[in-house]
Order: sequence, then structure tokens, then C-alpha cells
Amino acid sequence: MSGAARTVPPALRRARDVVGPALRDALDGLAPEVRRVVGYHFGFLDADGRPSSGDGGKSVRPALALLSAEAVRSPGQVAVPGAVAVELIHNFSLLHDDVMDHDLERRHRPTAWALFGVGQAIVTGDALMVLAQELLTEHSSPERSRASRALGRATAAMIAGQAEDLSFESRLDVSVEECSRMIANKTGALLSCAASIGAILGGADEVTVGALADFGLHLGLAFQAVDDILGMWGHPEVTGKPVASDLRAHKKTLPVVAALATSGSDRDRLFELLSDGAMSEEKLALAARLVERCGGRARTQTEAEHKLAEALDALGRVPLEPSARGELQEIAEFVTARDF
Amino acid sequence: MSGAARTVPPALRRARDVVGPALRDALDGLAPEVRRVVGYHFGFLDADGRPSSGDGGKSVRPALALLSAEAVRSPGQVAVPGAVAVELIHNFSLLHDDVMDHDLERRHRPTAWALFGVGQAIVTGDALMVLAQELLTEHSSPERSRASRALGRATAAMIAGQAEDLSFESRLDVSVEECSRMIANKTGALLSCAASIGAILGGADEVTVGALADFGLHLGLAFQAVDDILGMWGHPEVTGKPVASDLRAHKKTLPVVAALATSGSDRDRLFELLSDGAMSEEKLALAARLVERCGGRARTQTEAEHKLAEALDALGRVPLEPSARGELQEIAEFVTARDF
Repeated sequence: MSGAARTVPPALRRARDVVGPALRDALDGLAPEVRRVVGYHFGFLDADGRPSSGDGGKSVRPALALLSAEAVRSPGQVAVPGAVAVELIHNFSLLHDDVMDHDLERRHRPTAWALFGVGQAIVTGDALMVLAQELLTEHSSPERSRASRALGRATAAMIAGQAEDLSFESRLDVSVEECSRMIANKTGALLSCAASIGAILGGADEVTVGALADFGLHLGLAFQAVDDILGMWGHPEVTGKPVASDLRAHKKTLPVVAALATSGSDRDRLFELLSDGAMSEEKLALAARLVERCGGRARTQTEAEHKLAEALDALGRVPLEPSARGELQEIAEFVTARDF
Repeated sequence: MSGAARTVPPALRRARDVVGPALRDALDGLAPEVRRVVGYHFGFLDADGRPSSGDGGKSVRPALALLSAEAVRSPGQVAVPGAVAVELIHNFSLLHDDVMDHDLERRHRPTAWALFGVGQAIVTGDALMVLAQELLTEHSSPERSRASRALGRATAAMIAGQAEDLSFESRLDVSVEECSRMIANKTGALLSCAASIGAILGGADEVTVGALADFGLHLGLAFQAVDDILGMWGHPEVTGKPVASDLRAHKKTLPVVAALATSGSDRDRLFELLSDGAMSEEKLALAARLVERCGGRARTQTEAEHKLAEALDALGRVPLEPSARGELQEIAEFVTARDF
């Protein structure tokens, strides 16, 4: 959580260099009709279809995948199909979630559905999801089959998490446990898969794969806690999203759920505000202050710290190649280190 | 195309009996949050979540899958995971396509998105898609891997076809060839997979699998031609959809594309009508008459007949178990036999 870890870890740039071309090769095989939306979404094209060198995301998942191969002393190259597949699933979920959550901005640009329409965003997401599975099933090997099963399970969990998240919007009685389970599904499962799929493709044993998967899962929970704090109290220029968009959408993030689980007049006032259909800017700001006064922010920050510690503990459970382990740790600290 | 084949083939009922329970078992593993939409969509539940014995579709794809195993002298049981997986992919596409096409009714009931919202329909479709792949990848075997690859390719083609179909809505210069390719992708690929996945799971050789796949592909083209005629000139009570909904949505179905490919004053009047944004009921009726006068209906009917003949020819290319072959033929005649 300190400012010390703010330099972008070299592993992320390396992952972009190694996985980027393979990702673009895979995307080039898609139908021409979806390639424009794909190109825009990944930042290769601008809104008018012209080449662009936009921000295609931080490559956290590809980097985890490559390092998880190297951590078990396999060449990073063995992880590339897994890294591409996980990145495709991640982007499938972004395309669909933005429609479901009515989000208008991502990475400081209009979301794909806002620009091209709901239908285009749905079909493009569908195309990415099936492409991801195809990458792992086209060439049959025991490792690919195992990786394909792991990715399928992670995708299923992620979708279940999104369904839970949606269903929570109309509820005010979501427990902290329900909220944690939803986050483990929605965010944790795919990061867990990313952090272990390279080891799977490298033929590592179950115990080692399990430790790396646990690292990714806990990292996902820590990351989401940080992200939820930023979503409520961060600056839109930093997050690339409108202020308090989660609150506006009645999302039951951990800060909100933790605040609602307390008692007292602040909590009751918060409950009342959140019971309203649409909230004005003023009410949104008041709600964010009430969540903080009820301890929702502090509890979420503690959660982030604990989960980061658990992630790093998991890395220590098994013998791993030391420099890859160090880089995994660096990424974990980087993605959970943001100015609060 | 005759009225003779109107009795429901016993193979469809048999498929429902054999595959239905396996399908419900698979669906029971989904997250509780999507199960209500799933149950409604498949007709197990009514709009209020009460048990219902609604119309879950004709089980054409499961029946083809079972028969394709039996046709290569394997027990139908070997095809069940493939039959369930194909049916899940089919229903994933219905859920998403209804959102993209703004369709309000299916099987004489409100569509899932119309009842539960766009987000619920998207996430439920996503859940069905990944469940289908999981069914074939969870237990590793050479046949399952091969089936999983076939299903992945069919799903990718189907999604590409949907993207093409969407992109055609804003075009008036779609060629008959483009239209046929779109239909081969959107409808043909999954029927082709259904008609061969049982043979794949039964370990049949490439030539036999290829003949069954060709049967399914041509059957898909014949079926779509019939469906497009019904969509334009059929009775809503029979189709379960509003009248002329394809025309209303500016879909470039074969009758329309074939009509636009002619020349003369009727064609020019049709072109003019279709250039309008929204069409009144009167204009829709006039457009349908113009399509018919330009020969779009006759050409599509000829296409249906030719493609059915090609489908049956494909069945004759390889030695198949005679009674399964007979039942495949019966299904082909049934799904393409509707009153014109």
C-alpha cells in the first residue's frame, strides 16, 4: 500500500512484448465484422477505425501467466497460449460487464457499447470468449487439456460472480461473506487462473499449481478492495471512470456492505439514501462520506492489506524459481499500491 | 416440402426423454442467480418462477446428435454430453440474439431480456456458453477433445454469422453469396456440429463425420430458407413471433436479398421502402408483396428444396446404420416441411 511500489514492474512491459503479438495474431482470425470493435476495445484503433497506440490495459494477467511458467522453471514461451486466452476472457468480461453495468467510460474512452451499440458489444464479447477456449483446445496435449479445464472453471466462476453482483444491486441486506464470495468469483477466479496457467502448461504438480492459484486468488481480493476504494473516493482522472459510478449503480462493494453491517445513525442514514432509486450528485457525495464514517473505507483497506499478505504467503508455500517469485511479488505490490 | 411429413418424428421425443434429464442436471450446477432466467428460457418455469411444462423447443439438435452416434453403430448414450453441449450453445445464442435483434417474443412468450432485462439475458447466455464447453472438457478423452474442438469451431462460426447478420442490417447491397455465407455460419455450423458430434464421440472416421457434418450444414441452409419464408409470410400464431419481424429489423434474409438482386420497378420500389428507417404496418405488408413479386419467395423455396436434397445426398455418401439414417432423413423432412 506504500508509494514505494509505483514504478511499473518490468515484467508487465515484457509480457506486453511477448504476449502482445500472439494476442494480435489470435484476434486477426476473428470475423471482419467484429474486428473493428475488438481493435477499438483493445486500443489498437481509435473510434474512427484509424490505427492508434492506445492503452490496452496493464497486461497484469499475461505477466502473471508468463511468470507462473518461469516460477516452475519452464520457459515463459510455454505459457503464451494461456496468457492470450486469459487476456481474451478478461476482455470478454469487460465488454459484457460494461453493457450490464451501463458503464459509459473505460480507460478514459467511451466504452465499446456506448460507441458501437449493445449488439456489437455482446457479439464481440461472445467472439472473444469462444476464441479463448479454442486457443487451448485446438492443439491437444495433456497440459492444454488441463489448462482448458482451469480456464473453463475460472470463466464459469467469473460469470457466476457477475450474476451475483447484478443481483446484489436490488438488495440492501448483502452480507460481508456474500460480498467476499462474489468478489472471489468475479475478480479472484480469473486472476487465480492467470497466476497458475503457465505452471499448468509447464507441467507442474498440483501442489505448486495450487499455491500459485491461491496467490492469484488472494491478489484478486486485495486488488478488488483497492479498486473499490478508488471507485468511491478516487479521482476520475486516475480511474478513467466517472466518480462514484459503483455507488450510482447501487453496486454492493465491500466498503458499502461493511458500512451497512454496522449500526448507528450514520448507518441508518446511509441505508435510507441507498434505498432511493436514483441519487443526486450531492446524495452520492454524502453516501460516500457516510460509508467512510461507518468504517467501510478502513475495513476495506485492512482487507486489502490482509489479502496481499495472504497472497505473498501462498508464494512462500512451495519452492519457486527465485527471480520469478520476486517478480510475482513485485506485480502484487504494484497492483495493490495506489494513493489513497 | 409436402404436407406428408407433418407428424412429429419419434426421434425428437426420444431425444427429449434421453437428453432432457442430462440437460437439467447440467443446468442445476449453474449459479442460483441465473437459474431463474435459465428455467424460464427453457420453459421449466413460468414468468413468476413457478414450475411449468412449457415448450422448451423441438429438441432437433439433441436428436441429430443421438442419431449421429447410432448411425455409426455406437449407443446413443455416448452422444449425450455432445447433445447437451450443442443444446446449451443453441440456447446461449437465442438469449443473446434476442437482445441484439430486439425481439420481444419467442415460443409465444416474452423473451428473457424483455422479462428480466438485458443484463440478466447476457449473463445467462454467457453462463450457458461456458457450461457447454466445460461439459466436453471436464473428462479428458481423445473423442471429447475432438468433440470440444468441433463445438468450439461451430460456436465461433455461429457468432461470426450473427455479427455478419447484424452488419447487414445497415446495408442494401448484400449479395446472395454473402447472405448464404452468413446463414451457413449462423444456422448451418451448429446444425452441422449437432449432426456429427455423436459420430465424433463414437469414434467415427473423418469421412463419415464429414458426411454427417455436410448433412447438418445443408439441412441448416434448407431450414433457414423455410424459416425466412415463414418469418415474412407465415402466421404469428404458428411462428410464435410478430409478423414480418425480420423485415421490420432490416434483416437481409434470402428472400429480401434475392429480390433486391433483380431489376425493374418493383425492385426499385422495394429498395426505396427498405431505405426508410422505420416502416409502418402498411409499408411492411407492401414490402413483403414486392419481395414476392420480385421472385424472392420462389427463389428461397427453390433453395430450401435444393439444400434438403443435398442434405439427403450427403447421408448417402457413406455407409450408415439404416434405421438411424432413416430417422435422420425423417427429421430433415420434418423441419423443412411447413405450410407455405
